[in-house]
Amino acid sequence: MTELKLFAPASIANLNCGFDVIGVCLQAIGDEMIFRKVAEKGLRITKITGATLPFEIDKNVAGVAAQAVLDEVGEPDFGIEIEIHKKIRAGSGIGSSSASASGAAFGINALLGYPLSKKELLNAAMKGEAIASGCEHADNVAPCMLGNFTLIRGYGPLDVVEIQAPNELFAVVLHPQIELKTADARAVLEPNISLKSAITQWGNVGGLVAGLCTQDYALIGRSLQDVVIEPLRKGLIPFFDELKSAALHSGALGAGISGAGPSVFALCKGISQAEKTAFAMSQAYLETGIAFDIHISAIDTEGVRILESIA
Amino acid sequence: MTELKLFAPASIANLNCGFDVIGVCLQAIGDEMIFRKVAEKGLRITKITGATLPFEIDKNVAGVAAQAVLDEVGEPDFGIEIEIHKKIRAGSGIGSSSASASGAAFGINALLGYPLSKKELLNAAMKGEAIASGCEHADNVAPCMLGNFTLIRGYGPLDVVEIQAPNELFAVVLHPQIELKTADARAVLEPNISLKSAITQWGNVGGLVAGLCTQDYALIGRSLQDVVIEPLRKGLIPFFDELKSAALHSGALGAGISGAGPSVFALCKGISQAEKTAFAMSQAYLETGIAFDIHISAIDTEGVRILESIA
Repeated sequence: MTELKLFAPASIANLNCGFDVIGVCLQAIGDEMIFRKVAEKGLRITKITGATLPFEIDKNVAGVAAQAVLDEVGEPDFGIEIEIHKKIRAGSGIGSSSASASGAAFGINALLGYPLSKKELLNAAMKGEAIASGCEHADNVAPCMLGNFTLIRGYGPLDVVEIQAPNELFAVVLHPQIELKTADARAVLEPNISLKSAITQWGNVGGLVAGLCTQDYALIGRSLQDVVIEPLRKGLIPFFDELKSAALHSGALGAGISGAGPSVFALCKGISQAEKTAFAMSQAYLETGIAFDIHISAIDTEGVRILESIA
Repeated sequence: MTELKLFAPASIANLNCGFDVIGVCLQAIGDEMIFRKVAEKGLRITKITGATLPFEIDKNVAGVAAQAVLDEVGEPDFGIEIEIHKKIRAGSGIGSSSASASGAAFGINALLGYPLSKKELLNAAMKGEAIASGCEHADNVAPCMLGNFTLIRGYGPLDVVEIQAPNELFAVVLHPQIELKTADARAVLEPNISLKSAITQWGNVGGLVAGLCTQDYALIGRSLQDVVIEPLRKGLIPFFDELKSAALHSGALGAGISGAGPSVFALCKGISQAEKTAFAMSQAYLETGIAFDIHISAIDTEGVRILESIA
């Protein structure tokens, strides 16, 4: 392969009860990236559209992830050019930086003839992610890379569990056009929580995983609760309660903050329900006067993938 | 049915990461109870073997659970006698009181022609359990009643998720003959835990549930960790570390405190491995000079059940 264009999907992390451990991959939203073999050695970012991002390899999420792959498998005897075409807005809370990181790791690996598996690429992707979020987290890079739902069972070593998405599950994501820094969303968290809340939360994590594994949509819905993080963070998202309430009243299985926000997601059974919920959420937010965009997406079952390639 | 004899199995609660929410039913250990229709109205406990327990209905776990069923469905026009034959030692940490409570609720319901489902009987069983443990918990009554693994997703209303046990899974339970009161085991707990530990714990809960649902024994093993409760409680069980270490070194998937202790359990893949692990745990504990008994058990997939009945 001398050139390839890939799709790096957006993702929803946390899913209420699964703070820092559960994520899901979205089919309808994602970045495109191009990777090209060239004669002049070295790694270069040659084009960025859709966002203002640094071209320096060591300051760019995709650059760092790409370099991390090369550090692991060795520099090739050709150079590589990367084009980044952002479609996921930075700071929206649906894994924009993770898409860049996972996409870059995957793209480099593909050009090199796939020396590493997708799971093995997660460490490199996490290094890229760390440039944006300050720490090596896998809760967005894993679903973006692998597709479906992912559970980070633990770090050290990274243990990612893939959970197949029930096939009638759809996501709605409403992105309010406000700025909410991940650092601010982190700052409201408390270092300690009550044992009682923790037990409630891990009961719901167990319920969500069991619901996904057995395609029990009602159980998925009952488990999409968050007694730990949402109460602390929802104040950062204007009209969160109204939005969540609109989603639930329209028939969504559950709703909550996507990642660190400000996007708000809902999960629905079936495309018709997702359309109904998207309409209800739009109506609720139109009244606030805050600009937003909204997406309906199937769950992506494949993760980062090649769209076109030149042999 | 005018008379029935039933089996009420022992169970392991918590399973490390699943404190207060996960439990599993054991096939090899359990109480027997007899329920008999008699002319003289009223509920009476007429015989108790294997333990010294009160005969007064309102002071006996089985009596309270039985009465709770009658309170829910109405007093019948006949009387009921109960015999309790305890095989599970009180205070062993494998659901002795829960077996009495679930068995009693099931037995009364059966004599009455099954007006309630097994799941509907859990509330009555929890009322019985509360006499012994001080609070209405379902983490042992649910697996005892329903069999397999159970997850208490939440209370209010009680939401119990049944998870089928992988068919090669076996449990080993070593019961040190020491007294450890549940109240003392509760007293060492901290009301708050770090968010970091909570995240680790719910990552493992997700992993354990996913492992059970997909019969992934290695994942089950990696998930059988407890960073929250075990560090606080293990000091109450003499030579816990040595026992756990012996289990793990022998090839067990995981090991930990059964319920509030003092029993220590291990989960193993296959009966041969379970026998090997039981031998290793026995050897380790023989050196301590503390008396113990040890059981190997398949996972019970049925829960409380009738052994014999007279029409």
